[in-house]
Amino acid sequence: MKNIGVLLSGCGVYDGSEIHEAVLTLLAIDHAGAKALCLAPNIPQHHVVNHLTGEAVTSESRNVLVEAARIARGAITDLSNIDTLDLDALILVGGYGAAKNLCNYESKGPECEVLPEITSALRSFYNAGKPLGFMCISPVIAAKVLGDQQIELTTGIDKETAGHLKAMGARHIECSASNAIVSKQGKIVSTPAYMLDSSIAEVAKGIEKLVTEIIAML
Amino acid sequence: MKNIGVLLSGCGVYDGSEIHEAVLTLLAIDHAGAKALCLAPNIPQHHVVNHLTGEAVTSESRNVLVEAARIARGAITDLSNIDTLDLDALILVGGYGAAKNLCNYESKGPECEVLPEITSALRSFYNAGKPLGFMCISPVIAAKVLGDQQIELTTGIDKETAGHLKAMGARHIECSASNAIVSKQGKIVSTPAYMLDSSIAEVAKGIEKLVTEIIAML
Repeated sequence: MKNIGVLLSGCGVYDGSEIHEAVLTLLAIDHAGAKALCLAPNIPQHHVVNHLTGEAVTSESRNVLVEAARIARGAITDLSNIDTLDLDALILVGGYGAAKNLCNYESKGPECEVLPEITSALRSFYNAGKPLGFMCISPVIAAKVLGDQQIELTTGIDKETAGHLKAMGARHIECSASNAIVSKQGKIVSTPAYMLDSSIAEVAKGIEKLVTEIIAML
Repeated sequence: MKNIGVLLSGCGVYDGSEIHEAVLTLLAIDHAGAKALCLAPNIPQHHVVNHLTGEAVTSESRNVLVEAARIARGAITDLSNIDTLDLDALILVGGYGAAKNLCNYESKGPECEVLPEITSALRSFYNAGKPLGFMCISPVIAAKVLGDQQIELTTGIDKETAGHLKAMGARHIECSASNAIVSKQGKIVSTPAYMLDSSIAEVAKGIEKLVTEIIAML
């Protein structure tokens, strides 16, 4: 059975992982007959957002790994232990947590810095020819780390994000939520997920395609 | 388009709604061509559990509606406004939040009390002949509120919970995670979901069946 790492960044679209995307990824991996292993960095969240009002809660602080454990039903590994795991592929889930906790793209755009553990994991997977999957806003991390490899990515149809991907060296291809883009260069698959104003069924279809393409590469 | 209420109890299996069950319910409703409307009571959580360690965090408090909003991507209604919503059916998601926040079954068993808003919503839906769906541990709420109606429910194969359902007046029928039970009495459907040690794909199948049966009743 193939082991697919699923990298989370908290629990909730505005300050962590987009919950639907995370669950649909776990579902697609199970449907494909592979095993999902959830991972998250053991770091404080950039901030906490009240998801009812959309406002930041300055009095609260939460930990990315502890909150991501909610999505994983407790079965989650600290990202710093990734070397000890036997992973065949790695998928990054979206949500603002990917742009606020895993890197600082949300504030710095193409000049962002990515967590060193993630930079190193993505480079080692890429160099080992292991497939990588990115959804929603997480392709900005792929572009920042692997932009010098002429990889192809999608974040949907948004011109600004597409421009940022290009500024970091990647090529952007427009894509609908129910589809996924396979890069000609490297084993990289991406899908827009909730970057577009899509239904959960469309997002599920795109994520299922992403996972199917990744499994086919193994 | 039919409007299906989805009642949440927080965000996370140990102190709120089981996240996979909630997302899979939203997915199944979209697949069925209906519209999901998320609801939660605006009350403090019974407690907060660190999902990495499984331990209660006594220094923290969270609100059920605010946390459930994470699953709903912000699109959630205070349960006290349920009368103003045009709902055709109502589904209760599982997770310990159903047994700790929506009622106190977790500490009191069959002697539990259910939130008055929920008691009243379930009775009015039942009396109006509108379908009700229950998954995981949430059938204990159905048994407490509607046990005098000889309804049939499932929580899987666990003898203790089945005994509690019977003590509250309901009939228990054993069921696997990938299936759902339709009560002969009333328009009530239930599925064990994560009450059994099941895979996410099996849970998805059972929830899809529950939603399909509910839509067929409309």
